[in-house]
Amino acid sequence: MYYNEKNLWQIEQKGFDERFLGKSEAIMALGNGYFGSRSSEEEAYIGEKRDTFVAGTFNSFDENEVTELPNLLDMWGMEFLINDQRFSLTQGLVSNYSKRLNLKNGELCREFIWELKDIKLKFKFQKFISKNRQHLLVSHLELANLTDRAVSIKMRSGINGQISNEGSQHFTDGEKGLTEGKFIQMMPMTTGSKIQFVQTVEHKFDIEVSERPETGRRAFFMNYNFELAADCSVTIEKRGSIYTSIDNDLASHDLNEIRKQAVHELQNIEKLTYQELLTESQLAWQKIWEKHPIKIDSENFRDQLAIRFAKYHLHAMAPAHDERMNIGAKGLSGEGYKGHTFWDTEVFMLPYFNFTHPDIAKKLVTYRYLGLDGAHKKAKSNGYEGAQYPWEAANPFDGEVTPVWGAADIVTGQSTKIWSGFIEQHITSDVAFGIKQYIDVTGDEAFEVEKAYEILIDTAKFWVSRLDYIQETDSYEIRDVIGPDEYKEHGNNNAYTNYTAHWNVVFAIDLIQKLKSQKPDIYDKLDQKFNLNLLTEILSAKVDKIFLPKATADGIIPQDDTYLSKKILDLQKYRNSDGVDSLFHDYNLEQVNQMQITKQADVLLLMLLFEGLFDKEQKLKNFNYYEPKTTHDSSLSLSTHAILSADLGKLEQSYDFFNKAINIDMGEYMKSSDAGIHAASLGGIWQMIVFGYGGLRMVESQLRIEPHLPKEWKALEYGFDYHGKAIHVELTKDKMTLSKENDGHEISFMNKGQKYVLKNQLTIKM
Amino acid sequence: MYYNEKNLWQIEQKGFDERFLGKSEAIMALGNGYFGSRSSEEEAYIGEKRDTFVAGTFNSFDENEVTELPNLLDMWGMEFLINDQRFSLTQGLVSNYSKRLNLKNGELCREFIWELKDIKLKFKFQKFISKNRQHLLVSHLELANLTDRAVSIKMRSGINGQISNEGSQHFTDGEKGLTEGKFIQMMPMTTGSKIQFVQTVEHKFDIEVSERPETGRRAFFMNYNFELAADCSVTIEKRGSIYTSIDNDLASHDLNEIRKQAVHELQNIEKLTYQELLTESQLAWQKIWEKHPIKIDSENFRDQLAIRFAKYHLHAMAPAHDERMNIGAKGLSGEGYKGHTFWDTEVFMLPYFNFTHPDIAKKLVTYRYLGLDGAHKKAKSNGYEGAQYPWEAANPFDGEVTPVWGAADIVTGQSTKIWSGFIEQHITSDVAFGIKQYIDVTGDEAFEVEKAYEILIDTAKFWVSRLDYIQETDSYEIRDVIGPDEYKEHGNNNAYTNYTAHWNVVFAIDLIQKLKSQKPDIYDKLDQKFNLNLLTEILSAKVDKIFLPKATADGIIPQDDTYLSKKILDLQKYRNSDGVDSLFHDYNLEQVNQMQITKQADVLLLMLLFEGLFDKEQKLKNFNYYEPKTTHDSSLSLSTHAILSADLGKLEQSYDFFNKAINIDMGEYMKSSDAGIHAASLGGIWQMIVFGYGGLRMVESQLRIEPHLPKEWKALEYGFDYHGKAIHVELTKDKMTLSKENDGHEISFMNKGQKYVLKNQLTIKM
Repeated sequence: MYYNEKNLWQIEQKGFDERFLGKSEAIMALGNGYFGSRSSEEEAYIGEKRDTFVAGTFNSFDENEVTELPNLLDMWGMEFLINDQRFSLTQGLVSNYSKRLNLKNGELCREFIWELKDIKLKFKFQKFISKNRQHLLVSHLELANLTDRAVSIKMRSGINGQISNEGSQHFTDGEKGLTEGKFIQMMPMTTGSKIQFVQTVEHKFDIEVSERPETGRRAFFMNYNFELAADCSVTIEKRGSIYTSIDNDLASHDLNEIRKQAVHELQNIEKLTYQELLTESQLAWQKIWEKHPIKIDSENFRDQLAIRFAKYHLHAMAPAHDERMNIGAKGLSGEGYKGHTFWDTEVFMLPYFNFTHPDIAKKLVTYRYLGLDGAHKKAKSNGYEGAQYPWEAANPFDGEVTPVWGAADIVTGQSTKIWSGFIEQHITSDVAFGIKQYIDVTGDEAFEVEKAYEILIDTAKFWVSRLDYIQETDSYEIRDVIGPDEYKEHGNNNAYTNYTAHWNVVFAIDLIQKLKSQKPDIYDKLDQKFNLNLLTEILSAKVDKIFLPKATADGIIPQDDTYLSKKILDLQKYRNSDGVDSLFHDYNLEQVNQMQITKQADVLLLMLLFEGLFDKEQKLKNFNYYEPKTTHDSSLSLSTHAILSADLGKLEQSYDFFNKAINIDMGEYMKSSDAGIHAASLGGIWQMIVFGYGGLRMVESQLRIEPHLPKEWKALEYGFDYHGKAIHVELTKDKMTLSKENDGHEISFMNKGQKYVLKNQLTIKM
Repeated sequence: MYYNEKNLWQIEQKGFDERFLGKSEAIMALGNGYFGSRSSEEEAYIGEKRDTFVAGTFNSFDENEVTELPNLLDMWGMEFLINDQRFSLTQGLVSNYSKRLNLKNGELCREFIWELKDIKLKFKFQKFISKNRQHLLVSHLELANLTDRAVSIKMRSGINGQISNEGSQHFTDGEKGLTEGKFIQMMPMTTGSKIQFVQTVEHKFDIEVSERPETGRRAFFMNYNFELAADCSVTIEKRGSIYTSIDNDLASHDLNEIRKQAVHELQNIEKLTYQELLTESQLAWQKIWEKHPIKIDSENFRDQLAIRFAKYHLHAMAPAHDERMNIGAKGLSGEGYKGHTFWDTEVFMLPYFNFTHPDIAKKLVTYRYLGLDGAHKKAKSNGYEGAQYPWEAANPFDGEVTPVWGAADIVTGQSTKIWSGFIEQHITSDVAFGIKQYIDVTGDEAFEVEKAYEILIDTAKFWVSRLDYIQETDSYEIRDVIGPDEYKEHGNNNAYTNYTAHWNVVFAIDLIQKLKSQKPDIYDKLDQKFNLNLLTEILSAKVDKIFLPKATADGIIPQDDTYLSKKILDLQKYRNSDGVDSLFHDYNLEQVNQMQITKQADVLLLMLLFEGLFDKEQKLKNFNYYEPKTTHDSSLSLSTHAILSADLGKLEQSYDFFNKAINIDMGEYMKSSDAGIHAASLGGIWQMIVFGYGGLRMVESQLRIEPHLPKEWKALEYGFDYHGKAIHVELTKDKMTLSKENDGHEISFMNKGQKYVLKNQLTIKM
């Protein structure tokens, strides 16, 4: 990957290497939140993964496979025969190769000169998914003949449905048609969830070409033939659109009406050029970029690039248009994790949206409200009460969708059981925590009253039903769970789980009391649902007996009951293995389970999210204890460590984590993004900058701003929304200046234990 | 394609061209009748079609797709990284390339030298599907380092289920496992028909290699790493087996038992080398080759090669092991026609098996007996009685499986209806005709009594129920059909259909009378099924009123009621278009329907199969009339014309047809075999030689041998079985010598209207 100090809006690949197609496909993925595509090349390659997903259109291949985002019929592909030779960069001579994504407007450009025998052509492909017309994709090719001889060109392009999710086909081979001789339409339907898709494509040429339609099984192509004279060029455009029967912007969901609308849309923009359509889309992106831009004055220009990279992808993947869907762990950029939503949303990505795009954040938290039914279903099926959120979520009504069986154990030949869907239960307090953060940051009272209270009480109800009573100690434990550190399965009293569950219950009790005394109307409504007196009794009876792992004599909070008694392994060898999971070349999961090896921040994440529970010394001790035992094998680990170490004044180490974290996708390791970009890590990038170095935090409903710039940074500017007010922060090493519109409102925040009030502008010396 | 006069057992491709992968994949396909594979390259290419099918394992993707042979998980593939460069013939320098199929033993060999940067390797791949162990496939690679430097080699190989039938996935992602650390097993199941598959693979190396198993979705691979020292070579073997829960050679169909058996089989042959396993398989092939070998002394060596090519493929695709399945129109060599069986079997391929492998022929006709239920179902659903055979057949019990909707009309955008399944009804008399030929040639009385009579009566019963009574003429017509010429849809009184239906009814009446008087026991049994008195009454009442199209004043039998009144188009331009369907670039099917254009032998096929109905002059007139109007767009057309023109003494023209017919697959046109080899055409090759030039024919239960050698042939030797006796025929231009074992039996045959009796040896001057 190539990054250029002179263009901090661009990520680029300077040479073509078919071994590493997945890297640019994923990290240059296109999307507008409604749909997204990997940036596969137009021409086909062995090893490519040609994915397009529409958010929320889940389907299961069969009863043994969990639901996933189906990979749509491909609309980007183009095949070329040049003088009857197949055009492919694996053949001939390729020069001046550049594939680059413009983060500012989401345009992908790929250009190069290709020579084969007496052919010499210059290709310039450009394409984007429109940010303002959510169904639209546009692809543009300028092809120039650099020789003094004409070449004959055959191009085959259309819609190809002979693809799948790694072999699992989610679509029927639906109707196909050609409208007005040029609009190719295919109408596949998901096999189980019966979501009807309408995919439409048209081609435009600036020269005369002969054309012949060709239909096949799951495919409809146009074959174009033309000659490209010496020193001449041709411009080819392919425009397409995707609609589905669950779209919330359609007047009618009748298939024929959708088909008509799809054609009309392309007809309506017939007169607009590629550039005009791109400009339109760029204006939509511009609104995002103008909202709280982050400016980093760093020795390392990639720091500035990284936050743009993160924000671009967060907006390419976040379904800002529809609350019935959420962000997948790989966004819309790959089949990894099947498009499912994890705690990644609440703990890693939601903070960005809370503080900068509360409208989108609202959609994301509303999704959890819609998920209450599924959470009830899950609780019930496990013998619990209340709302137990699914570890992996798809359609919010579905409940748990974590696969039950994973890959076969390569030794025993038996499939390994995936326990997360059963016992990785902290997701429920993570959701509650996220909801609370959303309310605190946005001050969205309507949501608070209508949705948040219910979630916060229902999750607490789950937790008290979940507790294991231990007679000997007259206490409630939480046994047999997986905490954030997934290398420890079936642990008892995982600190993160117990503390966050306890918080969830305490919060619900307080909330109920407060509502009873202050907002009787709301209380009454909730009472009808929950029988609050009885529930309060139960919550109160148990809350103080919830076992909260206490620090050892050395000040270490035990990750779980047995962690600290396990063998310690020197991880030095594995921690610098650059993404290669070599730990598992030496040990299997069972063995790792028996050692003090942590996959990702666990106790430390607890200390970051609930900072008030622990003092700085405790945090420091635990940081020093756990971090060296952590492999950071999860992309969720580094940002937590970067922020916590910044809080602890370990800025050098923090910045090291920061660099590793931005390299999760932007780095040189060419295989780790194959299954898709790491969505949580993108949220982590924003958090490291704004929470970590910018010092912004929402702690116990109180805003706190306590920056720590790393030595490589001279200055940082960022902004955020707080209760509907926009606040701008300018930081240098020695002062912090906050400003907001002078609208009569005041905003209070904490800094180093002191309370400040911001009316319009305020500078604090540091 | 390259054919070598010095090796008439070999078809060869001398250069690699990734544009034409389909050609060698299909015409060099491997198979043993139980399963078959296209000969795809081990390494992957864009445009490849990697197919493996097990005969009879039909499945439908969904209710809108018809049943088809599912494309199995691939077991042949191997990926190589050589010094971290992906091995592909699209890159680097390839020399001495040869890919060749040895028809004698079914071994495919592919060798070449590959150079890339400082790598220079010699690859020699060999593989075969065992003819004696029906579940086994073996692949062998000798890889030599031709440089004085070591190269590092990474090989990834195993079982890959991330493939499909053009996007339609037929398998669940079943259990996977590794037994004894080396036998990879995958257990997919068809989604609808619930056929359980067990696919097993192991690898063997003659040097030390490091290995790492890797499981994925629908895939299980082993990763091997090794160094290949300067001037050294390595031998790698991959052995695999395929079992299914419908196999008829299994002691137990329990999944675990099948898994064990699959492993045991590979363990049992552990000590046998590749060469030994190949020799075993070759011996099984040898038995086929020894059975009535054909020897052609021709000016053109390809004539000899062609018959071996045809016989090889007929035996690679014919399910000799199981009567519940039949031969698909593309055998096991491609997804074309979905593995379905057509009249191609009875009219084009069955004669070969009748005369040379009556044991296999018996399986093929028994399949039609098993198909009676399906044929009843079809008749009933169409409002008819008796047995109406399906135009396309899969599982015999299923009845009709012709797709109802074809590709979208590229102009209207509507799907075009495929009428063959409804109105291409001559299949029913074709089946009856095939059954009759089988009995006449083999003298298989058990089959005749137990199965054939029922079919012959049941089909006649269908026909009389199918007739349309026409009041004005007091006659029965057969309206609204498609005849063999599929360019004429919805015709009335297609001559082929009416005449063969009439024959079917006449034959049944005669049969019933004969049984009544001569075999009362058998009559009684059939009477219980059919109520023969009543049925005979119905048959007899109608048979003489069946309208049989009469010759015009010019002696032309009208192909149907309106054909002769249609416009005539000069087809010269299209008939030499070398497989390119350019007729349809100028006209659509509707327009072609309105002209005297015939896709394939129709009236002429009738004249060939029922030669006694027409005199030579009539045949000549009709040949001269219809042939110029025939595009020969079906691969079923040329062989009929070759034989008929030989009968008519047009030997030069006949030999021209012969050459075109053998070129259907063996010729230079590189795309026409992509969907698979043309099974009927293979039977046609045998028929042209033995029926056409060898003059063998079974006409009205009487053997006839009346040879006509083309001028390019000096001599021809062939053999056949007749009623269990093997007869050998040696032909030159001036004499014919027949010989058989001197076993006391006599065989009578006709030659030029004269009856001869063969006891031991007989020579006839010509």
